[in-house]
Parts: sequence; structure tokens; C-alpha cells
Amino acid sequence: SRMQIRAMSVDKAPSFSTGNKFQLNDILEAQQFDRDTLTAIFDVAREMEKIEINSPGSQILKGYLMATLFYEPSTRTRLSFESSMKRLGGEVLTTENAREYSSAAKGETLEDTIRTVEGYADIIVMRHFESGAAKRAANTASIPVINAGDGPGQHPTQALLDVYTIERELGKLEGIKVGLVGDLANGRTVRSLAYLLSKYPNVKIYFVSPEVVKMKDDIKMYLTSKGVEWEESADLMEVASTCDVVYQTRIQRERFGERTNDYEKARGKYIVDKAVLGVMQKHAVIMHPLPRLDEITVDVDEDPRAAYFRQAKNGLYIRMALLKLLLVGW
Amino acid sequence: SRMQIRAMSVDKAPSFSTGNKFQLNDILEAQQFDRDTLTAIFDVAREMEKIEINSPGSQILKGYLMATLFYEPSTRTRLSFESSMKRLGGEVLTTENAREYSSAAKGETLEDTIRTVEGYADIIVMRHFESGAAKRAANTASIPVINAGDGPGQHPTQALLDVYTIERELGKLEGIKVGLVGDLANGRTVRSLAYLLSKYPNVKIYFVSPEVVKMKDDIKMYLTSKGVEWEESADLMEVASTCDVVYQTRIQRERFGERTNDYEKARGKYIVDKAVLGVMQKHAVIMHPLPRLDEITVDVDEDPRAAYFRQAKNGLYIRMALLKLLLVGW
Amino acid sequence: SRMQIRAMSVDKAPSFSTGNKFQLNDILEAQQFDRDTLTAIFDVAREMEKIEINSPGSQILKGYLMATLFYEPSTRTRLSFESSMKRLGGEVLTTENAREYSSAAKGETLEDTIRTVEGYADIIVMRHFESGAAKRAANTASIPVINAGDGPGQHPTQALLDVYTIERELGKLEGIKVGLVGDLANGRTVRSLAYLLSKYPNVKIYFVSPEVVKMKDDIKMYLTSKGVEWEESADLMEVASTCDVVYQTRIQRERFGERTNDYEKARGKYIVDKAVLGVMQKHAVIMHPLPRLDEITVDVDEDPRAAYFRQAKNGLYIRMALLKLLLVGW
Repeated sequence: SRMQIRAMSVDKAPSFSTGNKFQLNDILEAQQFDRDTLTAIFDVAREMEKIEINSPGSQILKGYLMATLFYEPSTRTRLSFESSMKRLGGEVLTTENAREYSSAAKGETLEDTIRTVEGYADIIVMRHFESGAAKRAANTASIPVINAGDGPGQHPTQALLDVYTIERELGKLEGIKVGLVGDLANGRTVRSLAYLLSKYPNVKIYFVSPEVVKMKDDIKMYLTSKGVEWEESADLMEVASTCDVVYQTRIQRERFGERTNDYEKARGKYIVDKAVLGVMQKHAVIMHPLPRLDEITVDVDEDPRAAYFRQAKNGLYIRMALLKLLLVGW
Repeated sequence: SRMQIRAMSVDKAPSFSTGNKFQLNDILEAQQFDRDTLTAIFDVAREMEKIEINSPGSQILKGYLMATLFYEPSTRTRLSFESSMKRLGGEVLTTENAREYSSAAKGETLEDTIRTVEGYADIIVMRHFESGAAKRAANTASIPVINAGDGPGQHPTQALLDVYTIERELGKLEGIKVGLVGDLANGRTVRSLAYLLSKYPNVKIYFVSPEVVKMKDDIKMYLTSKGVEWEESADLMEVASTCDVVYQTRIQRERFGERTNDYEKARGKYIVDKAVLGVMQKHAVIMHPLPRLDEITVDVDEDPRAAYFRQAKNGLYIRMALLKLLLVGW
Repeated sequence: SRMQIRAMSVDKAPSFSTGNKFQLNDILEAQQFDRDTLTAIFDVAREMEKIEINSPGSQILKGYLMATLFYEPSTRTRLSFESSMKRLGGEVLTTENAREYSSAAKGETLEDTIRTVEGYADIIVMRHFESGAAKRAANTASIPVINAGDGPGQHPTQALLDVYTIERELGKLEGIKVGLVGDLANGRTVRSLAYLLSKYPNVKIYFVSPEVVKMKDDIKMYLTSKGVEWEESADLMEVASTCDVVYQTRIQRERFGERTNDYEKARGKYIVDKAVLGVMQKHAVIMHPLPRLDEITVDVDEDPRAAYFRQAKNGLYIRMALLKLLLVGW
């Protein structure tokens, strides 16, 4: 049966995964990955780059069916997952507005929905508006669940593609200096990234953000407890001239509600433009989780250090890798 | 041509289908099936269970294209059909909100839409908000049409999967006792089920429902005319202790409109809970068409007699069987 | 790489395409096609008719992925493109409501969206509400872009299928008489058709329209400059008795806004009914871009000269041809 095939494939794992250390059942949160697992996933992602370029029509996931349950529309993330599945020969069942169109609208619990959908597919990719929804789904489902973002909670595949991009762009993760810029209070991507970077030695992190959206204390305390150096700065130019990575984020209007004043104050305070590029080192890169409004000016795009569209593309490789790992093993 | 291939395949039908007795052109309403056809469809559904488990990547419907035209969103039913098609190697064109997004919004008739869509696909699965819409589509289309629910009208694949589930769970359909519980006035599933059960000898049906949503006279008269025993009861415990199947349904708020009082009165009157389980026979099963709100308590789920998620899964096998039969024949 | 494969395939083009004259990069507007290109595309469309009928399961585009980005829902056009891709073995990523569901809602530019989506697919089919959007997308994308309609702007695949239909129905495009009827001011299809017909010798065009939606001067002047004879007429019967093609269009309520009076005046003035059929020549045909309201009466449908559903089907062949040409070359 399909379940057995999956289990068997895991047996074929390489030697470094003895003891099932690398066995993945679900992808729920950035915290579930240790450094060895990250390295192993990134190795598979590299293979996926080659497959995407050289093997159109790959059949690695032929016969497998992925259900994309999006309770909150997100075309970018959904298309990235669906492309990943199809690039490997798999098939997709999709709903881009499950909140409105599914039985959830009639009051069905998430657990009941999952118990139905798991009968139709081999893996579930879910985006939800409630923190913790992915974990609830995984607790119910007998098939793997990938969290494609659950409200203010987690978005682990974004965290993985961010770290993968740094490694691809710089060639290393040890000893790097990373400036996190923009909305550090509400942005789950920067929080997850800080968390994952703490696994690598001699990393230094700079926080550059407007006063109202500063990085919260939990992450700062966590970094300190792991011996990771960090500092807050109000000087983007100085940080940019020092760092290997400038990770810019969007100030998310939707998080401010009626506090329009706060939003306007925060927005536009730290813009990455040609002047910032001018002080950056030659090998350094600019990243952004996208969508971008005007926090990176368009004239930066053509500079080879603008890595954000390559970063988006890396999402494809990371998701291809995860789908392969969860469905057919290492 | 594709049409000829379909016709030829029908010639390969087994001996019991001489005289084209089992030839299916469209799936429009529960009434179109006689007992022999049901038996034959269920045999194919059993084959489909094996294919789903043992043959990921089946190519039985390779090269065939299904259009799912949903004028009323229903993620569960749509995903079930699309999974069925893809499990057999077929492909899908989908619209989950045809009412708003298609030319229907500009005033195009259903007939014109069908005459266009039939040029793009090999089979149409349609859900519509108007009773009789499926028949109109089938009258127009030169390709098969499956009714995936047309308003208060028919939902024949649900009726088939209900009967199939009883046969799978109990091993027989003759001489069984079935309790239909909940909203019997508005629920098309219980009406269709009562209709189909009348084809089997010595079936007895119990109706258990709040006063405002009692089973209508047409079905009672039909059962009587067919010699099927039935009775109404207000005592769920007694019915549960006697029956082989307790078929619970949701009181559908959307059918009550402004009559909130009637809804509140009806809802919660007959709940299937641990106490009901306690009086049920060991071999008996609980069914429900889903979605479920609180008319079956969650602690019932883990009991092996809770058959409703297996029932949902059977929808996949029934739909796989119908797609195979309509597209490539027996 | 995929890009190189595409470039190489173009080298295999037939002799008549020396000098890359027929190389297509994007499909943006009707004006980009000269007569030789039209002829060459129509030849491929004819091949596609054969493939659709005789080769279910064609694998010509196996391994290729199309992204359908619809910022304005249009189920008909979307399903036609997706069917075309799937009939050739290709795969599809789809969003039917990008305006509401994608990052555009958060303020992302179209260019940024395209730079992300081009990483997930091999070709983009886009419908947009703004004139010129397709060109902006094509300027950004490194993969081919097909314009599936951009607001009041262009809808080039409709124009191609219209001309292809005339050629298929009449066997020729030279020396024909075409009556364009209905909303000639707002209908982009009739404007594009008039433009393309000007490439064929001895064509005569008749404009029959209510006063408020007359054909604009730019097209009339263009036709005159190309030596194409045209005249305006208020007499549909006389035009119908003379023409080889009566091309009827819908008076689009949505273009009139609050001017309900003008809409009512325009609508219903020129109806194609049995009486019109009665004066038409035996070889002549009636066309319509669909959807149709009551500007062609339903009793006309069964007449063999009613070509509008065949016309819709030709959209499939034209789009199959374009997808093949853009992805694997001649």
C-alpha cells in the first residue's frame, strides 16, 4: 500500500540518518529542524534544482496526489507548492478559498474536514488563519501535513527557503552577519529566521526597525541563551555596510488595524535603495520574503546583489525537496 | 474518435449486461438505478478500492478530461470527484464558483454554457443551485453529465455511496433495519436512501425526526406501495437498539430562513452520543452524510461502529466506478 | 535547459520561416500577425484538430507547465486554455481570481508578481482588467506570455479563432463579405476582426449597429488606408442576404454604466432570428463570440449555418497551436 511504500523508502535513507533521525512526518514549525536535518534537506533541494532544469517531465512523484487546502488565499505560496508537486510528476487537488467554499462555512470542525480530505489525497498542504491549525490537522491526519502558514503562527517552508537562500548566495551559514530590517514585531519570517540562524556558530544579528514594530523580547532572550550575538540599531547605512545579508520586510498594514498613524510612522523609515546598495559589500545580498511595496526601490532590482527573486525561486526547490522527502523518503 | 471508443468499450460488457441494460449515459437521479445496476456498479467500486490501494498511478482514464462545473461551491464533493478522476490517471478542468465567475453572471443560459464546455472536456460533473439543472445539461450535452447535486433536487452519487456503504459494512442489504434520524423533510440524502432501499426485500425503515422536519408523505406512500414496512418513532434509543443502521443527518439551518425558533427546536432533539452507542448492537453502524455539527458527539468517532468517515471514503470508490463506466465502459 | 530547448526547436522550423519570420515570443495583440503567420498558425491548428480527435493522451507538451493568471474571472476563456494545455499532455497552475486572492491585493506590482510566477511555470496566460497589462507582463517575463484579454484592450486569441473559423467554414478569406453587427464601439472582437480581415484582398465589411455604439473612426480610417471597402447600413436583412458571414455581438450592459436608456435603445434593435436566416445564402454562416443573450434567437441554433459553437470549439485548436508553437516551436 501507499503507506508501506513510504515507510520502506525511509529505510533507504543515507547512513547519516541512522536511527530515523531525519525521518520527517509533517512540516509544522521552524523549531522542528536541527542543523543536520537542515543540511540534509538543502542537499535534496540542490538535487531538485538539477531536476527542474534538466528533467522536465520528472516522474518521481507520479501517482501521488497533494491536496492544497487554503483557508486564506495566498496565490504565491499555493502556486509554489503546486508547481513543486507538478514538476515532480505529482498531481494536485486544490481549493483556494476553503474558508468560504468548504463545509467550514457550515460549521464543520477542521478535524472532520481533515478526516475526509485524507481519504482523497496522499499529502495535505494547508494554509489557515488560526495559529496552531496545522498542528491540529497533523494530529488528526494519517497522511503528512505541511503548514503553509497558520495565521500569526508559523510558516516553516518560508523559514527553510530563507536559510537555503543564504547558504546558496554566500556559500556558508557560519560566522555571517545578518541585518533584519522592517517589521520585526509582526513578521513571522524574521522571527523564524533568527531562530534557525541560532543553530550556526558565530552568527551576528542586527535588528533595524521602527520603534512600534521592534523585535520582541522572547527572540532576543532566546538568542542570548544560545550565545548568539545581537544588537539593535537605528542606522541602516552602518548595518548595511557591515552585513552579509540585509533582510528587508514589508510593514504590514493589515497588522495595524485602525492605528493608521502608527503605520504611517513605521512605513518608509528604512528603505533599501541605491544609497544603501552603495555602502554594501560586494559579496553581500539583499533578501525579502515578498510581496514588496516600496521598502526596496525598483532600481535596486537589477543589481546582482538583489537576491529576492532568486529567493522566491528557491521556495520551489525547498518545497520539491519536502514533498519528495515526505512522500517517497530520502 | 473518443465517442466511438466509448461505444466500443460498452460492447465488452459482461454477459449480465446483455441488451445494454447496464449502459449508463448520464448520472442524474437515484431513481434511474435498478437493483441489478446497483450491484454491477458496486462490483466496479470494489475493484476501484483495490486500484486505489495497489496501483498509484493507474492510467485507466489517461487522456480523458473531466470538467467540474460548480455553480454552488462544495469543496468536499468537488475534491472527491477530482480525486476519483486523478486516481485513474484522468485530468480535470475546474471552476469552483461558476455562478459568479462564468458567463452565467452575464446572463448566458445553462444550455449555451454546456454547449461550449462540452467542446473542452469528455465528461461534465455539475453542481447547481436549481432543481432539474442536471437534466437540462444532459439534454444538451453530447458527452456524459454527472449530477453532483442540483439544489433541493437530486444528489445521486451520495445515494449510491450510502447504499454501497451499508452493503460494505453489513455485508448485505436484504432484511435490514434502518433508522433515518434528523432532518427528514429537507434532507435529500435520506429521501434518496429510502427510495433505493425499497429495491431490497424485507427492509424496515424507522423515521426519527423533530415534528417540523418530518419525512414527507410522498416517500411514505412510495414505500407502502412497494411493500416496504416503515414506522415513525420519537424514541431514538429504542430505534437504535433495534436497527442495523442509524443514519443521522444535520438539521440544516439554511433551510429554515428566518424561522430561528423552529431551527432551535429541531436541533439538538436527537443526538447520537455514547448513550445511543451503548444500546446499539455490536454489528450495527452509524452513518452520516457529513458535514456533522454536534448531532453526533465527537467521542463516538473512535468506536468501530462509527462508519461516517469510511462512508465519505466510499464516495471516492463510487465516483471512480462511475467515471470509469461512463468513459470507458464495463 | 528549457530555454535552450525552445530556441533549438525554432531552428527546426519549415523553410517558409527562414529569417525567424515566424518566431513567436508572446501573443499580445492582433496587430502582431501578418498574413503568412496567420496561415502558418492555422496549419498547426488543423493538425491540432486531428490530435484532439485521434490522440487522446497526446504528450507533445508533457513536462511543460502553464500558469493561468486571471485577474478578472472568465471561466470560458480559462477552461479553453487549460483544456488546450491538457489535451497536449501539459500541466496547469491556475488562479481564477488573482485580483482578490494574490499579492496584488496587498499592493504588489504586476511586474513583481510576474517575476515570481515565471519561476514556477514555462508559460503565462494572463487576463487582466487593465489595457496594456499583457505587454507589461511580457516585458518583464523571461518566459512566453499570452494575453487572454486585457480590459478594453486586446484579446488576440479570440481574433485568431474568429479568422480561423471563417477560413474553416467558407474555405477562403479572400473576396468575402462580412457583416459586423451589434456593439461595434465597445466590442474588441469586431475591432480586431476588422483589422485582421484587412490583410486579405477584396474583402468587404458592413457595419450594422445602433447609433450609440457605432464603429469608431480609427478602424474606418485604417480600413480605407488599406484599400478595404466598407459601408454602414441600418438594414440587417439586406446585409444578411449579401454577406458570407454575419458576425453578431452582444450589447454589453456593463459598458453603459448608468445610461440604462441608451442600453435599452441599443439592445434588441438588430436580432438574428429565423427571418434573417431566411434571407441568408446557403453557404453563409452566423458567428458570435459568446456569451449570447437574445441577440441570436435560440431557434437559429439548429441551422447548419449557425457556426458559433463550432467557433468556440475552434478556440481550443487555436490555443493548442499557440501553446505548441510558443513552447516547442514549429
